[in-house]
Amino acid sequence: MNSKIKTIGVLCSGGDGPGMNAAIRAVVRCALSKKFEVRGFLRGYAGLLNEEIIELNHRSVSGIIGHGGTILKTARSQEFRTPEGKKKAVEILKKHGVDALVVLGGDGSYRGANEVFRQYGYPIIGLPGTIDNDIFGTDQTIGCHTAVHTALEAIDKIRDTAQSMERIFVIEVMGNKSGYIASQVALGSGAEEMIIPERTFDFEALYRDIKEGSKKGKLSFMIVVAEGAGKAEEISAKVTEMTGLESRYVVLGHVQRGGSPLAPDRILATRVGVAAVELLEKGIYGKAVGVLQDEIHIIDLKNAVQRDIKHIDEYSRLIRMLA
Amino acid sequence: MNSKIKTIGVLCSGGDGPGMNAAIRAVVRCALSKKFEVRGFLRGYAGLLNEEIIELNHRSVSGIIGHGGTILKTARSQEFRTPEGKKKAVEILKKHGVDALVVLGGDGSYRGANEVFRQYGYPIIGLPGTIDNDIFGTDQTIGCHTAVHTALEAIDKIRDTAQSMERIFVIEVMGNKSGYIASQVALGSGAEEMIIPERTFDFEALYRDIKEGSKKGKLSFMIVVAEGAGKAEEISAKVTEMTGLESRYVVLGHVQRGGSPLAPDRILATRVGVAAVELLEKGIYGKAVGVLQDEIHIIDLKNAVQRDIKHIDEYSRLIRMLA
Amino acid sequence: MNSKIKTIGVLCSGGDGPGMNAAIRAVVRCALSKKFEVRGFLRGYAGLLNEEIIELNHRSVSGIIGHGGTILKTARSQEFRTPEGKKKAVEILKKHGVDALVVLGGDGSYRGANEVFRQYGYPIIGLPGTIDNDIFGTDQTIGCHTAVHTALEAIDKIRDTAQSMERIFVIEVMGNKSGYIASQVALGSGAEEMIIPERTFDFEALYRDIKEGSKKGKLSFMIVVAEGAGKAEEISAKVTEMTGLESRYVVLGHVQRGGSPLAPDRILATRVGVAAVELLEKGIYGKAVGVLQDEIHIIDLKNAVQRDIKHIDEYSRLIRMLA
Amino acid sequence: MNSKIKTIGVLCSGGDGPGMNAAIRAVVRCALSKKFEVRGFLRGYAGLLNEEIIELNHRSVSGIIGHGGTILKTARSQEFRTPEGKKKAVEILKKHGVDALVVLGGDGSYRGANEVFRQYGYPIIGLPGTIDNDIFGTDQTIGCHTAVHTALEAIDKIRDTAQSMERIFVIEVMGNKSGYIASQVALGSGAEEMIIPERTFDFEALYRDIKEGSKKGKLSFMIVVAEGAGKAEEISAKVTEMTGLESRYVVLGHVQRGGSPLAPDRILATRVGVAAVELLEKGIYGKAVGVLQDEIHIIDLKNAVQRDIKHIDEYSRLIRMLA
Repeated sequence: MNSKIKTIGVLCSGGDGPGMNAAIRAVVRCALSKKFEVRGFLRGYAGLLNEEIIELNHRSVSGIIGHGGTILKTARSQEFRTPEGKKKAVEILKKHGVDALVVLGGDGSYRGANEVFRQYGYPIIGLPGTIDNDIFGTDQTIGCHTAVHTALEAIDKIRDTAQSMERIFVIEVMGNKSGYIASQVALGSGAEEMIIPERTFDFEALYRDIKEGSKKGKLSFMIVVAEGAGKAEEISAKVTEMTGLESRYVVLGHVQRGGSPLAPDRILATRVGVAAVELLEKGIYGKAVGVLQDEIHIIDLKNAVQRDIKHIDEYSRLIRMLA
Repeated sequence: MNSKIKTIGVLCSGGDGPGMNAAIRAVVRCALSKKFEVRGFLRGYAGLLNEEIIELNHRSVSGIIGHGGTILKTARSQEFRTPEGKKKAVEILKKHGVDALVVLGGDGSYRGANEVFRQYGYPIIGLPGTIDNDIFGTDQTIGCHTAVHTALEAIDKIRDTAQSMERIFVIEVMGNKSGYIASQVALGSGAEEMIIPERTFDFEALYRDIKEGSKKGKLSFMIVVAEGAGKAEEISAKVTEMTGLESRYVVLGHVQRGGSPLAPDRILATRVGVAAVELLEKGIYGKAVGVLQDEIHIIDLKNAVQRDIKHIDEYSRLIRMLA
Repeated sequence: MNSKIKTIGVLCSGGDGPGMNAAIRAVVRCALSKKFEVRGFLRGYAGLLNEEIIELNHRSVSGIIGHGGTILKTARSQEFRTPEGKKKAVEILKKHGVDALVVLGGDGSYRGANEVFRQYGYPIIGLPGTIDNDIFGTDQTIGCHTAVHTALEAIDKIRDTAQSMERIFVIEVMGNKSGYIASQVALGSGAEEMIIPERTFDFEALYRDIKEGSKKGKLSFMIVVAEGAGKAEEISAKVTEMTGLESRYVVLGHVQRGGSPLAPDRILATRVGVAAVELLEKGIYGKAVGVLQDEIHIIDLKNAVQRDIKHIDEYSRLIRMLA
Repeated sequence: MNSKIKTIGVLCSGGDGPGMNAAIRAVVRCALSKKFEVRGFLRGYAGLLNEEIIELNHRSVSGIIGHGGTILKTARSQEFRTPEGKKKAVEILKKHGVDALVVLGGDGSYRGANEVFRQYGYPIIGLPGTIDNDIFGTDQTIGCHTAVHTALEAIDKIRDTAQSMERIFVIEVMGNKSGYIASQVALGSGAEEMIIPERTFDFEALYRDIKEGSKKGKLSFMIVVAEGAGKAEEISAKVTEMTGLESRYVVLGHVQRGGSPLAPDRILATRVGVAAVELLEKGIYGKAVGVLQDEIHIIDLKNAVQRDIKHIDEYSRLIRMLA
């Protein structure tokens, strides 16, 4: 065991997502199995700065592997973004005898973690806890499978009624900067169109598609929109204005952040959680852990920045071909 | 067997809901078992007026008991509302040799059905196909259990994230004139407030509750609103304006109309579907079939009007007491 | 408030079921709102006799309304069945200042509760916590909707593969003495046969049905069996032996006891939980609380014995008519 | 377009799995978009030999992307395994003007397909339709995600009751020769042990683990067993015999083959379905299509044999470390 580290802290930062609890469980139980002590900080960096700290033992994480949300809660912190905030954070960590920190979050949380590591040499490891699946160094992020599944289940239900009522439906899913969830569920649900931040959207083309589909007897039409690319209510109104056809909309919102995590999110979370502790054990810090091509993959925190999502062109082509 | 009826027609009218297919299956197979022939009309009264008629046999309804939506599709018809429309409908029914009709729908569909029965003596039976559970003569309507379940599953997921992120959430569920779904899911989810058409809502009281809860350490807050009582987006904005706290909203919309029906919706649909055919067999017409106190219950179509939902006061009291 | 009661205890006894947590939450929060203190006993009467007692406050039951299982755990106790056990139980309750007890369980748990009430005048109220829906004085029991739903979801999946692979499937569901779950899911799933403890089963008739269905092109066949009426594996083997057709079996077992409770189970649990506390508040003891015809219904504990399930004949007839 | 191919056939062979319909939809609509005609053979090679052939158009596959099972049904065929059977199959394909064939199935179905390609030069493409995820040339097979999810949902429910009732549970999942599903759900559910065909199982070690866990206060214990490694009922009986503790068992069986496919199964099915048609379009035959490292991957049918599952050692280690 690395002689310097006796106690490991863990926190969640940014938006929550399904699988965070599975990661916390893996960090805690792996650390305990290696005779580390474990502390949890509540409410992310904000809670760290408020010294909201709890002891985590084997029982603390019993039965949470399948629970949505995070027992540590999560938050965003303005104070931590300042240099003073980061300095204070390190002081608090040391004051409480926490020798290393595992941070679950997205690319924003990683940036903060990397600053703390770079400036103070504080041992820190990042785990990809975001539903948008847009971080370098990992094929998937914790929660992305479940968020897609939740949205897909909802769209399947809309399909039932769309086919019975023969209307146009606009479904807004999560994704401020990323069309990941939208593209997965559009292809997976057999939706007719998707509107995502990565593409400019051509309303005229949509209009033609609906008109043409309508001539072929296609009387229901589903349009998936990522929240960062437009508001469902406005798109729905515009579609009705253009086509004269009735249109309804749905805003799934934070429903997609909750729910019991799917197997791949739990397994990803478990694998990277264990890997994080094993890196700290070996004295390796300032890293982000992911899974690439089904194998644990380690990169420097500073490189774990936002990445473009994959296969947008292929998915667009398939959606159009198969609609 | 009643000597006049050889062929029975069936159609769905108004909004669709889970369990309509189970009812169609029961009508078809029960009728076939009694040597009736069966026809289906597509797209409700509109399709009837367009002579969109199909033959239904044992195979037609195979495997549909668990499917959302309706294989007959549904629609609303302006033409049928006119006296001429109803006259034409009866002519078309006779032209195609359809001697009696089973109509699945809500109170609007029942009114139309009753007019046809009253004016032309045409044999017609109504089945309660609406998710709002607001029709006299039946404790439950086909689809109401499933719609509540779908909304509740979504709210459970929001609860996960609400507890992790500690925010206010406003969730808009179905119910234009009826707070049925809203009251069921508010009580069932442990939501803090409900806003329904049956009650005037006091924003000042909500403000006080949130402030008070906040003092007690209650940092997440869920408000369920029936669509007829307000728009989630506007309520969310108002809450933020009043309290200064972050708020998010969800609009579940037609998600609640789809999905595989729950057991009680399937069983209700099956029981009333069989009862409808058995009434026609006995030469009893102009009735609405429901289930009251777990027994088949028959009332005149003209009395199967909209009713108030039950237990609003008790539910309001419990939500408030247990929040 | 009743002057004698200051502290209310609550425990779960016998088999667990979905909705027990919702009932515990209602008991706890209603009691706290009326200024009672609340204690929970772990592991039913066994834990009571071992003095496994915990304090329950507002936070203790936060977020549990949608969780399966029971935070109080449950067990069966041999010791409590003896007269000495019951005497000791009352002594322990008094020793810990617990002035009244709410017991969640089935008819066996009710019998024990009634003995304690009758012999020692100890204030006790029973709530119907059993998935079998076979207790007098309530139309439904806590958990019965969810258990049926879980079994139905599984059977729907088997239907997918039964129709694709064209085989015979035997599905064993819960129900030692009661065919409630079996009859609900057989009718709700469109199964071809059910085998339940309330009926003697005629294998020859099954053989004829399969042969006849097979002639009509019916190549898949689903048989639902309640565990008390036979073992799926043996029935499957016998069917294959008789018909020469391939047969597969499934044993759902305790899967049906878990899972997030459905809305009706949560609402039933909430209503009876509040009613239990309000009875104690009024000084009324020795009662079982249920919901009959959608209204709270109170009967003497001694009358809340096992009852036959309803509509077996109607359900049998419908299953056969619609298969 | 390849001049020789005008009509493409498609069939499912071997055990069915969720996502087969999504693959059929992709094959059909992609082929139609490229002006091929499409035929479906019912009941796999058996149906081909019986000339059970249907035309597939755009409507035939409407709405099936989310449905479990397969609209083409599937079966195993003894006759096709013989040289005469394969010869006859090619004759029938030619007789009906079917110029190429897409086969969904596992390694057995691939072997048959390869023989037909090798001996008769008949254009054939294989798609990985099996829930066991054990075929070379693809990271995942169609249906494997959904089968894992179904089993995991069931085990989550057992966990609820295991924690409430404190018992030992033995859960039998699919996997005759493959521990894939078992290892995924054991790690994903936080089960205490797994028993798989790839490992000899040490009952003495299990006995010690249970005894040791029991000392530490661990009173519930979940054991996942792949059907090929043992029977749940017998293992359950043996555990009770060894430990004296109560044990229950569940046999999930074909439940795991059904249900609506998860997003990754639909997307995999869609991508390989389109790729199959595009290979035929280019005149490339005798291949199996998969997705490796998130990219379409083509190998010779003869190499698409059964492979070992990955990460057994890592998963075993993690299950043990985190239990």
